[in-house]
Amino acid sequence: MPEIETPSTDAATATTPIAGTEGRVRAVIDAVLPGVDGGRFPVKCVAGERFTVTAHCFTDGHDVLRVMLRWCADADEAGEIPAREVPMVMLGNDEWQAHFTPPAPGRYRYGIAAWVDPFESWRHELTRRVDADDIRIAAQVGAIEIAAAAGRAEGDDRATLAAWSRALEQAARQHADAATLKALALDEPLAELAARYPDRRFEALSAELPLVADRERARFSTWYELFPRSASPVPGRHGTFQDVEARLPAIAQMGFDVLYFPPIHPIGRVNRKGRNNALVAQPGDVGSPWAIGAAEGGHKAILPELGTAQEFRRLVGAATALGLEIALDIAFQCAPDHPYVKEHPDWFRWRPDGTVQYAENPPKKYQDIYPFNFECDDWRALWAELKSVLDHWVGEGVRIFRVDNPHTKAFAFWEWAITEVRRAHPDVIFLAEAFTRPKVMHRLAKLGFTQSYTYFTWRNTKQELTEYFTELAHGPGVDYFRPNVWPNTPDILHEQLHSGVPAMFMSRLVLAATLSANYGIYGPAYELLEHLPRGAGSEEYLDSEKYQLRHWNHASPYSLAAFIARVNAIRHAHPALQANGSLRFLPVDNDQLIGYAKASDDGLDVIVTVVNLDPYNVQSGWLELDPASVGVDPGQEFQVHDLLSDQRFAWQGGHHFIRLDPHIVPAHILAVRRHLRDERDFAYFL
Amino acid sequence: MPEIETPSTDAATATTPIAGTEGRVRAVIDAVLPGVDGGRFPVKCVAGERFTVTAHCFTDGHDVLRVMLRWCADADEAGEIPAREVPMVMLGNDEWQAHFTPPAPGRYRYGIAAWVDPFESWRHELTRRVDADDIRIAAQVGAIEIAAAAGRAEGDDRATLAAWSRALEQAARQHADAATLKALALDEPLAELAARYPDRRFEALSAELPLVADRERARFSTWYELFPRSASPVPGRHGTFQDVEARLPAIAQMGFDVLYFPPIHPIGRVNRKGRNNALVAQPGDVGSPWAIGAAEGGHKAILPELGTAQEFRRLVGAATALGLEIALDIAFQCAPDHPYVKEHPDWFRWRPDGTVQYAENPPKKYQDIYPFNFECDDWRALWAELKSVLDHWVGEGVRIFRVDNPHTKAFAFWEWAITEVRRAHPDVIFLAEAFTRPKVMHRLAKLGFTQSYTYFTWRNTKQELTEYFTELAHGPGVDYFRPNVWPNTPDILHEQLHSGVPAMFMSRLVLAATLSANYGIYGPAYELLEHLPRGAGSEEYLDSEKYQLRHWNHASPYSLAAFIARVNAIRHAHPALQANGSLRFLPVDNDQLIGYAKASDDGLDVIVTVVNLDPYNVQSGWLELDPASVGVDPGQEFQVHDLLSDQRFAWQGGHHFIRLDPHIVPAHILAVRRHLRDERDFAYFL
Repeated sequence: MPEIETPSTDAATATTPIAGTEGRVRAVIDAVLPGVDGGRFPVKCVAGERFTVTAHCFTDGHDVLRVMLRWCADADEAGEIPAREVPMVMLGNDEWQAHFTPPAPGRYRYGIAAWVDPFESWRHELTRRVDADDIRIAAQVGAIEIAAAAGRAEGDDRATLAAWSRALEQAARQHADAATLKALALDEPLAELAARYPDRRFEALSAELPLVADRERARFSTWYELFPRSASPVPGRHGTFQDVEARLPAIAQMGFDVLYFPPIHPIGRVNRKGRNNALVAQPGDVGSPWAIGAAEGGHKAILPELGTAQEFRRLVGAATALGLEIALDIAFQCAPDHPYVKEHPDWFRWRPDGTVQYAENPPKKYQDIYPFNFECDDWRALWAELKSVLDHWVGEGVRIFRVDNPHTKAFAFWEWAITEVRRAHPDVIFLAEAFTRPKVMHRLAKLGFTQSYTYFTWRNTKQELTEYFTELAHGPGVDYFRPNVWPNTPDILHEQLHSGVPAMFMSRLVLAATLSANYGIYGPAYELLEHLPRGAGSEEYLDSEKYQLRHWNHASPYSLAAFIARVNAIRHAHPALQANGSLRFLPVDNDQLIGYAKASDDGLDVIVTVVNLDPYNVQSGWLELDPASVGVDPGQEFQVHDLLSDQRFAWQGGHHFIRLDPHIVPAHILAVRRHLRDERDFAYFL
Repeated sequence: MPEIETPSTDAATATTPIAGTEGRVRAVIDAVLPGVDGGRFPVKCVAGERFTVTAHCFTDGHDVLRVMLRWCADADEAGEIPAREVPMVMLGNDEWQAHFTPPAPGRYRYGIAAWVDPFESWRHELTRRVDADDIRIAAQVGAIEIAAAAGRAEGDDRATLAAWSRALEQAARQHADAATLKALALDEPLAELAARYPDRRFEALSAELPLVADRERARFSTWYELFPRSASPVPGRHGTFQDVEARLPAIAQMGFDVLYFPPIHPIGRVNRKGRNNALVAQPGDVGSPWAIGAAEGGHKAILPELGTAQEFRRLVGAATALGLEIALDIAFQCAPDHPYVKEHPDWFRWRPDGTVQYAENPPKKYQDIYPFNFECDDWRALWAELKSVLDHWVGEGVRIFRVDNPHTKAFAFWEWAITEVRRAHPDVIFLAEAFTRPKVMHRLAKLGFTQSYTYFTWRNTKQELTEYFTELAHGPGVDYFRPNVWPNTPDILHEQLHSGVPAMFMSRLVLAATLSANYGIYGPAYELLEHLPRGAGSEEYLDSEKYQLRHWNHASPYSLAAFIARVNAIRHAHPALQANGSLRFLPVDNDQLIGYAKASDDGLDVIVTVVNLDPYNVQSGWLELDPASVGVDPGQEFQVHDLLSDQRFAWQGGHHFIRLDPHIVPAHILAVRRHLRDERDFAYFL
C-alpha cells in the first residue's frame, strides 16, 4: 500500500452528511495552533514549561460558547491515559487560549472541545434584559436550564441546583419584581456550580494533535566536539578515553555541557584514506572515523586504541559528574571490512562486477564507505539492526546523538527509529547533521530530530544574519525546528576564519552563543585559532583530524578558552539567552555593527548584544533601543552592564552610541538593569 | 458521535510503523498547494481556466524523483472517475509544479504521486561519469534497468526495450569504448520510451485535496439590487414583475449582469413593521420583505402583488435574453404567520409563556421574525425542507442566491445544503451576506459560499483601502474567499454618502468596480444619489424601501446611470479588472489620491486606476509606476489612455503627475498602451 503523506479527509469524498452526521453540533473549531502539517507531525516543547494552545472557535448567532483544551500523555503499556481539560479563555477575534505544562519528557496529544452552552447563553442574555416581562419569562427559561443541570449533577450538587431551579421558577410564577428575579437568577456561586454540569451532547471535537515534550537541554545546550584520538598529551601517541577524562575539567570550565565525539568505532582498513584525504593510506595512517567497521567490530564496538567499553562507561560517569553529557556520532554507513558486509550482503547494493557500490556523488567517490541500501528486500531487518545500534549506546549511558548526514538515509527510517527510541527513553536527543536544502532540513526536524544544524557558518554579513535568524526565531519552523549553530566543524573551516584573526573567532563565537540557545564549536581547533585550509578557498582543514592524529597546545597564550568560558557563563546566568523566540534585531546606523535583544519569558532578564563584524577596524554607530520595549520609562536613565568587559554604561532615550574595538573585544553583551516598579515594567515587546 | 472538525491523522497515535508500513517508500511529499485547512475544505477555481498546483517533493540522497499531479472529477452516479496524470516540473528548491484545466463546473480532487526512479537516477549518474570502467559497469546496470522496464511494457515497446537492453549489455561485455557506450545508453527516444514504464511499486501518494470549479461569473460579476415593489412607473402603485421587465433594458445598458431581488415571498401580517421600522404598521403598510410567510404561502410562494410564478419565469427569461441573471434572496426565517409555524411548531423555540421566541439580540427585538431552531429534534426534516426551497427556485430557473445572514444559521447546514444543491447544479452561485467577524466570514467561504460580502463599505481612507484590498487579493483567503464589494446596500448607507455629493458616489463606485472583480450596488438609490439617513449618524436610509414602496425618478439629470454604464463597460472590455490576484498599490505622495494597477493573466492588459478620495477639492500628486513592471522599456515613452475621459497622456520614467478634479470626474481608469516587441514585454510583476 502506498504511503499517505498528508492526513486523509472525509471532505474529499462526496457523501451526504445529513444521513450520518449529528447536525446539531453548532460549535465550530476552525483552527488549533500550534500544529505541524495539520497534525501529521508533532509540535515540540519542553517538559515542565508552559505550552500555550490557541484555537479559533465560534458558533452561529449570539449564543455563548464554552471551549476546553484537552490534553493527555500518549498511551503507554497500561493503555489509554484519560484526557485532562483546561477551560480556554477568549482573547478576542474568536481566538481562545489556554495552556498546560507537560510534566515529563514524552509524547502527548492535545485537542479542543467546544459546545454551544444553553445555560451560559441564557445568563448572558439575562444580563442584558431590561423589560420586566422578558425577565420573568427568562427566569422561567433559566429554571428549566438549571433543572437540566441538576439532572446531570450528583449528590449535594444535584439537590442544590434543583432547589435553585425551584426557587427561580416559583419567584417567576409569583411575579417577584425584576431586580429580585435577576439577582436570584444571576447568583454567581450557583452559576459556577451549574457550569460544572454542562450539556455537552452536541460538542465539537477537534482532531488531536501530537506533541513531543523534550528535556530542557533540547532548548538550551552548549556543545564541544573533539576527536578523542587527538586528546593525548604526548605528541604522536594515539589518544584514549583516559586522555579525554583528563581534559574534562578544562572543557567543563569553558562552560560546555555536551561533549560530542566523532565515531569511536573500529575503522576500516580496506580503502582507508590517508592524511589530508589521500586516496591511499600510508602505513600508520589512522583513517577516517566515519569509515566504520573492521575485523574488531562495527557500530556497537569501540576502537581498541581508544579504550574498552568499561573505560567508555567510566568516561561517561566522569563527564556526568562535571555536568557534561557525552554525545556520540551516528553514521549509518560501513567500511568495506565492516562485519555487516559479510553477514548481510543483501543490505548493500551490488554492482554487476561483483563489487559493492561505494558512496559516490559522481564524479566524487568515497571508496572507503559503503552506504546501506534502504530499498533492499530485507529492509525490516536492516531497520531493526540500525535501531539496535542506538539502543546499544543508550544502554551504555548515552542520551545524545549527533546523526551524520541523515538526509542520505530513508526519511521513514528516522521517523520510526527516533520515535521508537524515545518511546522507551524520552530523554534522548537527536541532532541532525544535514547541511542541505531547506525543505529537507525542515522535514528531518518535523519527523523527529530534536535539534538541527543550520546555515549559520555561511551567514556572515549583517543582512544575512538578520534575515536568517529572524526566520529561525519567527519563521514557520518555530514549532519543530530547533537550530544548533556552529562557527566551525571538522568539515567546515569558513573562509572568514582563514586569516586566523582572533577578533573574527571571537565575534563568530559571540554571534553563535547569543543568537542561538543551542550552539557548539569544534575544538580545540576553535579556541586555539586553527585556521589553515587545505587549499586556497577550501573549507577543509589542513592536516585535518578527520584523517590523522593531532596534538594540541592548550597552554597557548592565544587560546580563547577564557573568553569562551566567560561567554558561556553569561549564557548560563541569563535565561534571556536560553531560548530564541524573543529575538529582535535593533537598528544600528553602521553595517559593520549588528545589534539585537533577547528577553526571558517573564521579561525580567533582558540582554542586548552588539557585535563588530569587522575584525580589523574600530567601528562605531548609534544603536536604536526603545526604552519602553525593555520595560524602561523613556524619561528615566537606566544602566546597561557589559557582561564581557564588566563596564557599565548609563543610557537614556532611544539612541545609544556604540564603539567596538576588535583589538580588545569585538562585542558587548549588555544586561539591561532598571528599577522595576510594577509588573508592566517587565514587559518586553517583540 | 461528536463532529470532528479537522482531519484525523495516524501520526497522533503511537503505532510502530515498521510492522504495517512499506518502508521502501523513499519519496517525500511534504506539501501540496493550494489547499484549505489540509483538505478539510475545497479550493475554489474557475472551470475552463488553468489551475496550478505546487508540491514540495524530495527524497534522501541524490536519486532522481518523478512527480505526477493526479486529478479527477468527483465520483458521479456512474461511479468513480479514473484519475488523470500530469508530469510535474521542478521549479527549484524542491518545488514541483503542474497545472490542469477543470473542463466544467463541479467538484474535483487532486493529489500528488512521487517515486524514486531507478531508471532516471541511473541516466542522471551516467551523464556525470567520466571513468571508462565506471561507464562500462554503469552500462551493465542500465541494461538491467531497461530490461525491467521491458518487463513492464507490452507489445512493440516491450520488444524495443528488450532489444536495447541486450544491445547495451553486449556492448559493455565486449568492452565497447566509453563514448559508444554512453551514446547507446543515453539514447533520448529510447529513454522516453522506457520512462513510460516506470517502477512505481514504492510510490508515495499525497492525500487528495478537494477542488470546486465554478463558472466564470463566480470570479467576475456586476450586481444590481432592486426592490421589485418599487419598480412601478406610477407613484404609489405596488410594483410588479412586469414593471421590472420594463426596467431590464436600462439595467442591462448600465452594464450589470446580475439583478438581485430582496425576498419576493408573501409578507407576514402579524407584528408587521411600519414605515421607517415603526413597531406598529399602519393600514396599507407593506411590511419588510424579510418577514417571510403569510396565509398565501412561505418561501416557495410569490407575493401576489408582484405577480405569478408564470410571470416570474417570464421575467427570468426576459432578463436572460439581455444577459442579466436574476438572483434571489434566501432568508431562512419566518413571519409569525408563516405556514411553517403551524405545520412545524417543533422547528421553533417556544417560551414558557406559550409564545414562539422571536429574533432578538437583547435589548434589540425583531418581533416580526421567528428564527428556526437548528437544534430541534426534527433537524433532519428542517434541513431537508430548507434545501427544498433552494431546489424549488433552481427549478424556476434561478442560479444565483444571495443568502441573508448565513452566520445566524448552523454552519453545518450550509455546508451540506450548498454541496448538495451544487452536486446537481454546479452552476449555482451563493453569495454570503455576513457582515460579521473575520473568522466567521472566512468559515462561510470555506464551507461553500461562492462569493462573500466584505467590509468595503467601512474602508474609506487610503490606508484602510490599501490594507484591506491587499489582504483580499493576497491574504490567506485567496484560495476560497471571493470578495463582492458594495458601496451601499438597503441596510448600509455609509456616512460618507450622507452629503449626497456626486463625486463621493462616483469615487466609491470606481473603487468598488476596479478594486474587486465582483461588485454591486443597491439601486436606483445609488445612481439617483439617495443619501438621507433615518437620523444623524445612522446607516439606515430615511423612508427605506425595506418598509415602504418608493418611486424613483429615473429621468433625473443628476443620475449616475451613464457614468456607471461607462465604468461597467470598461470592466467588461478589460480582463485586468476581471480578477483580483494581480492587484498592487502604487505610491502617490498625496493621501487623498489612491493608485493601483491590475493586469490580465497573460500580462497584455494593464489598467492603472487613480481615485481622488476628496469629493470637494482638486487633488494632485506624483504617482510612482515602474515602467518595467508593466512591460515598458524604462527609456521609452508610453501612452496611458483614460477610459473614463478618453484623454491620452504620454508618460515616461517612473513618476507621473496626477491631477483629479472631483467636480468633473474624481478618477482615472488608465489603460497602459505600449509597443510589444517580445514576450517579456508582457511581464507584469507583482
